[in-house]
Amino acid sequence: MLVSALAAASGVPVPTIKYYLREGLLPPGRATGATRAEYGEEHVRRLRLVRALAEVGGLPIARVKDVLACLDGATPLTTALGAAHDALAGSPAPEAPANGAAAAEALVADAGWRVEAGCTSLAQLGAALAALAGAGFPVDPVALRRYVRAADEVAREEVDAIPGGDTADAVEFVVLGTVLHEPVLLALRRLAQQHHSVHRFGAPPGTC
Amino acid sequence: MLVSALAAASGVPVPTIKYYLREGLLPPGRATGATRAEYGEEHVRRLRLVRALAEVGGLPIARVKDVLACLDGATPLTTALGAAHDALAGSPAPEAPANGAAAAEALVADAGWRVEAGCTSLAQLGAALAALAGAGFPVDPVALRRYVRAADEVAREEVDAIPGGDTADAVEFVVLGTVLHEPVLLALRRLAQQHHSVHRFGAPPGTC
Repeated sequence: MLVSALAAASGVPVPTIKYYLREGLLPPGRATGATRAEYGEEHVRRLRLVRALAEVGGLPIARVKDVLACLDGATPLTTALGAAHDALAGSPAPEAPANGAAAAEALVADAGWRVEAGCTSLAQLGAALAALAGAGFPVDPVALRRYVRAADEVAREEVDAIPGGDTADAVEFVVLGTVLHEPVLLALRRLAQQHHSVHRFGAPPGTC
Repeated sequence: MLVSALAAASGVPVPTIKYYLREGLLPPGRATGATRAEYGEEHVRRLRLVRALAEVGGLPIARVKDVLACLDGATPLTTALGAAHDALAGSPAPEAPANGAAAAEALVADAGWRVEAGCTSLAQLGAALAALAGAGFPVDPVALRRYVRAADEVAREEVDAIPGGDTADAVEFVVLGTVLHEPVLLALRRLAQQHHSVHRFGAPPGTC
């Protein structure tokens, strides 16, 4: 198909497609003339992915590029997952103060999780814990253990659901699930808080 | 204490304290002269809270103000929770396309949750689901039900842990837990994904 048909099939306007081509987010089409190229289904699929990462995931274009680089290489799945996490977090990773880093490592050890020592997510956890403690609102250890249990259950089932084998499909599945499901999870937690709060404390006037 | 002692006690520099006073984020001290005022423990506590919301929660000052307004009024707990959710989401709430709104409502009904019909979190959920479907990556219904279950368990225990009664303390507990624990939860999910992924697919070279 020509670029106009690609725009129609993907819902992405032609100028945006040209921008993605220039930025290397979309591989070039097959040249059929000096100013014409043919695009295929793989371009439609890639455009949807770029849009999802940029618009749903809210990632800046430079980080979308990092994520796509993983999908394009013959990347082992666990490496692709790490790259998706890094892209979400931005780089460089936040610097966790020593007390936060120690708290994060203790929590992960207590959970029995095997994670990369210097990884971004561990630094993020350490930074968040240290910031909360520093502000005078340390997270209650019982609440922390509850969060660990919930995260463990969700992630175990997410990883179980990955299509078998180390294919590009599996990598895409993991990267998207990580980046794009976070807003869904956060919205669900807030709705569940509302429900349980209404249940325990009653509804505010004029609602429900 | 004088403003200099307040700065020392809270870790917030004097110019920032003066900015918060001008913006109404901190109540004025008791005037003891034309340019002097006395501050108390309640000012130290409030400063820590403002810092946590702005620095840990990443909320812009205008939204910190919205959250504090709830803490200051004799606000019922469920209303304060809604205001915290609105502050997190920013306003106005995202506009969910009809298919997303319907999907969000169906999910909440299926979960048996009683939530406010037009609330921000429901609009956010609808917007996220619609964006994913529109990008060609609809969330698997089995995965969605899994997320609902995890959110329900976490939120139920969070609400159970709220100190009894409808006091300012309870409101503060809820608002902080909502705003400030999200980065902790997201980091834990990513770490758990890493662990289960290593468990199923093996570690990338050079790690663990």
